[in-house]
Amino acid sequence: MNGAQALLRTLADAGVTVCFTNPGTSEMHFVAALDAEPRMRAVLTLFEGVATGAADGYARMRGHPAATLLHLGCGLGNGLANLHNARKAHTPVVNIVGDHATHHAALDAPLQSDIATVARNVSGWLHTCTDVHALGAIAASAVAAACHPPGQVATLILPADVSWSEGAVPGVVPPPQPPARVDDARLDAIAAALTRGEPAALLLGGAALGAEPQLDAARCAASCGARLLAETFPARIERGAGLPPLARLAYLAELAQVQLRGVRHLVLVGARAPVSFFAYPGKPGSLVPPGCTVHTLADVGEDAADALARLAARLGAAGNDPPRQSPRRPPRPRGRLSAATLAKAVGHLLPQGAIVVDESQTSGTLLPHFTRGAPRHDVLTLTGGAIGQGLPNAVGAAIACPDRPVLALVGDGAAMYTPQALWTMARERLHVVTVILNNRAYAILQLELRRVGAVGGGERARAQFDLGQPPLDFVQLAHGMGVPAQRVSTAEAFADALERALATPGPHLIEAIVPSTVRGVKKWLLPHVLGLLPHLPDGLARGVQRAVAPP
Amino acid sequence: MNGAQALLRTLADAGVTVCFTNPGTSEMHFVAALDAEPRMRAVLTLFEGVATGAADGYARMRGHPAATLLHLGCGLGNGLANLHNARKAHTPVVNIVGDHATHHAALDAPLQSDIATVARNVSGWLHTCTDVHALGAIAASAVAAACHPPGQVATLILPADVSWSEGAVPGVVPPPQPPARVDDARLDAIAAALTRGEPAALLLGGAALGAEPQLDAARCAASCGARLLAETFPARIERGAGLPPLARLAYLAELAQVQLRGVRHLVLVGARAPVSFFAYPGKPGSLVPPGCTVHTLADVGEDAADALARLAARLGAAGNDPPRQSPRRPPRPRGRLSAATLAKAVGHLLPQGAIVVDESQTSGTLLPHFTRGAPRHDVLTLTGGAIGQGLPNAVGAAIACPDRPVLALVGDGAAMYTPQALWTMARERLHVVTVILNNRAYAILQLELRRVGAVGGGERARAQFDLGQPPLDFVQLAHGMGVPAQRVSTAEAFADALERALATPGPHLIEAIVPSTVRGVKKWLLPHVLGLLPHLPDGLARGVQRAVAPP
Repeated sequence: MNGAQALLRTLADAGVTVCFTNPGTSEMHFVAALDAEPRMRAVLTLFEGVATGAADGYARMRGHPAATLLHLGCGLGNGLANLHNARKAHTPVVNIVGDHATHHAALDAPLQSDIATVARNVSGWLHTCTDVHALGAIAASAVAAACHPPGQVATLILPADVSWSEGAVPGVVPPPQPPARVDDARLDAIAAALTRGEPAALLLGGAALGAEPQLDAARCAASCGARLLAETFPARIERGAGLPPLARLAYLAELAQVQLRGVRHLVLVGARAPVSFFAYPGKPGSLVPPGCTVHTLADVGEDAADALARLAARLGAAGNDPPRQSPRRPPRPRGRLSAATLAKAVGHLLPQGAIVVDESQTSGTLLPHFTRGAPRHDVLTLTGGAIGQGLPNAVGAAIACPDRPVLALVGDGAAMYTPQALWTMARERLHVVTVILNNRAYAILQLELRRVGAVGGGERARAQFDLGQPPLDFVQLAHGMGVPAQRVSTAEAFADALERALATPGPHLIEAIVPSTVRGVKKWLLPHVLGLLPHLPDGLARGVQRAVAPP
Repeated sequence: MNGAQALLRTLADAGVTVCFTNPGTSEMHFVAALDAEPRMRAVLTLFEGVATGAADGYARMRGHPAATLLHLGCGLGNGLANLHNARKAHTPVVNIVGDHATHHAALDAPLQSDIATVARNVSGWLHTCTDVHALGAIAASAVAAACHPPGQVATLILPADVSWSEGAVPGVVPPPQPPARVDDARLDAIAAALTRGEPAALLLGGAALGAEPQLDAARCAASCGARLLAETFPARIERGAGLPPLARLAYLAELAQVQLRGVRHLVLVGARAPVSFFAYPGKPGSLVPPGCTVHTLADVGEDAADALARLAARLGAAGNDPPRQSPRRPPRPRGRLSAATLAKAVGHLLPQGAIVVDESQTSGTLLPHFTRGAPRHDVLTLTGGAIGQGLPNAVGAAIACPDRPVLALVGDGAAMYTPQALWTMARERLHVVTVILNNRAYAILQLELRRVGAVGGGERARAQFDLGQPPLDFVQLAHGMGVPAQRVSTAEAFADALERALATPGPHLIEAIVPSTVRGVKKWLLPHVLGLLPHLPDGLARGVQRAVAPP
């Protein structure tokens, strides 16, 4: 048995049965070994960023890693941005990077580069295997490391001669370690802080964003009057009717500060202490309010679900019925297509069990609001800020959950980082409905230019955000990669197209022409305010709701 | 003056007047400063690999660097593959990577990553500027470092607060250092080796591939009966009628060994000692024949042109008329479109001064043969093996040389790594004719699978090389990005389309449907044999020419 065969056997034995590939010459023995290991599904991508982003999306939904197959340091470089997103999402990924044969490295051939140095940046575990006899065991360690709570990228660098040499033995992956249990003393301390009558908030992230932990968190929050918030960019969050109201911390620091204003105890549950996404001149980076004590109920690698259940019990709230979103969909929208009517159509039509991949940037800020009463669904977001995650994540999620519809909502700028994902959707006949929210701009940068206080930005600066010259035609791009597509510019047409696409198996793309929501900072802020509604006085909240209501 | 303004002033003062950009929030002050520095042309790209590949193509043609503007570590990751190609090409690039503000790094915000570690892999010079007062001087050092012979990637990491702070002073770039002059003793030793009557070869690379050095090298070679070869993947090579016959060393090690067989003295001129591109089981990595002495006439940073001129004088060949390719074009091809008829059409039509960007992989092996008697032109190739270089290189070359037509010949697989370059071609109205040689396969991998001796590669392995399900439609992809396009499948239609596109300013794409040249290794090898014709006995050479002649 050669190295590649033992590697594939090890992976498949451990339930790693999907590999997102973009191979080159140094990975040919891995490719050849596919025919001897029918349990492994090799999903070809045309670009490595699609492979790594698909592995991320797959494991976010499956809870178990997929593998990648990348070609040397340059292939790894192409996949780096989505590995960064996976790292920030704590996604388990078995990241396999082929390398030159060990004896070839000294020759400094054209593709020679320092793979380990680049990989270190995104990998919680990293190993270069130079001995075919050890490969099985090392591959098993890679899988175990990837699955180590909360999950991480484990990179195995695989020289070609280790792949092709004989004498390999498959490795055995030990049973996965459960996440660490939080001790009683910590629970006692946090229960005491929460019942002191001071303003408090629970900030949920990671594993705390599943349905049961959310409900327990809502029980805790309700019993002591604490606010309930989710991290800004969750790897995966369950949402919809029956779950508690749960606003995500706003991307804009100014608004996040409003959400957290006056909080004296901030309890982190699978989330990290909130910081501003970017730095701005003269503004603080940490979003923890002054005088607030930060408590960690469960760190990202700890058992957040168990900790919340036990905290609820300690607070005497274990049996309570928590506040829940009632089932409620917005009416089918009419008229002009906009960020608001598009979000309403999604809320109107979202099917039970849908997986929403949200990389819609500025155009998508109303989605949480209008989908809050929809049937139960999952949302995957841009965890690491490296755009180009949406389409690849959708590929992975669709392969992880073939019985669930995937709805990818992607901004036009973001879609152009990894458009090649559409081809894999067509090739694998994945039921992914891609909606491109095309405002023909890097709209978020139009806003950020003002937020950072950059002055002197005239015509030449603004041209850097203009994606309208020439306009991108996503219908033709999709057709070029084998995905049926249509363009819509009214709310009715969008709703009709979305309904049809969701009902028809296979990939579809809808190019939604939407006006930029960034006409002025003030107008753009409104959608964000919706996330704050629970924290606003009633009168003001109603005023805001009226302001953003459809005409 | 803030940091960004001083940086732009420093660059423009040094003649760095083009910047290929894909900015984000941390680069907003750089973007805002564009309006205050009209000498700087900011060319927006939709993906960082296009920006870095364009900077590479620009400087290959201009001999002077462009800048890039990338967004943090993930933007750098996306641009890494083409920076790798630039590094292998010894291209000067001023690679500017924006970073979080210095005080923000400690917060580990979503986009935080270790930029320097990733950059080190591709950068001959690397500096993180943390003091706005030093920025001008450091930027000047970056330009000087990029231009240091033979040229390199100089990466300047620019935290946002250094960009936005006041108090910066533009820096002054010192005059560029000339390449080092080779001493007389080395010339004497090499002249002695070449006149010993033993089989010798000159291997030219880098700066030795300009017209004058080629002619001097041909004078030297002719005077002592040495073979004349060029490195396999030159950054830029001048070709066409009036220049000496100059075969490139074959990509396939088996053929390169034939080209070098029996050579006792291998003289490197701006090239490195040849090695196999990849390692293969049981085959040597070094291509230097046994018993051959390797001499370095000029290392990559040394003055190859001067060394060749002086060597020619020492060999008494300075005034000689060297062998030259006579002006001769193949006839306009007819019939089936194939790798051969496509190359003939290019040879038939290639205009004076064209810049050919060749990333045509297996389909392009006949191009050097059929363009050897065309009018003088430049060829840029895939120096580092990281595919996705062709389209971005074409963008940069067109901006560097607006009066010269650019012909980008790109395989279908390669084109899909950086297709976003087409949008920038349309936006900037560049006169680039892109030919996609679409054989609907990773044909080179079909071949490599056999070459590495991978067995057991059945249907599932072969599916990894199949780009035909679904077929990519490059006409629609081009239209989707604003580039006029058409598909052709006969030699006549291709020649007509190419002629029209070359005559019409602005970007054009021609999708050429060609059969895979990899039907069997034997057939595929034939084109390569053409590069060997000068070294074959006459009878065999004529036989080979007949075998590949058109029907």
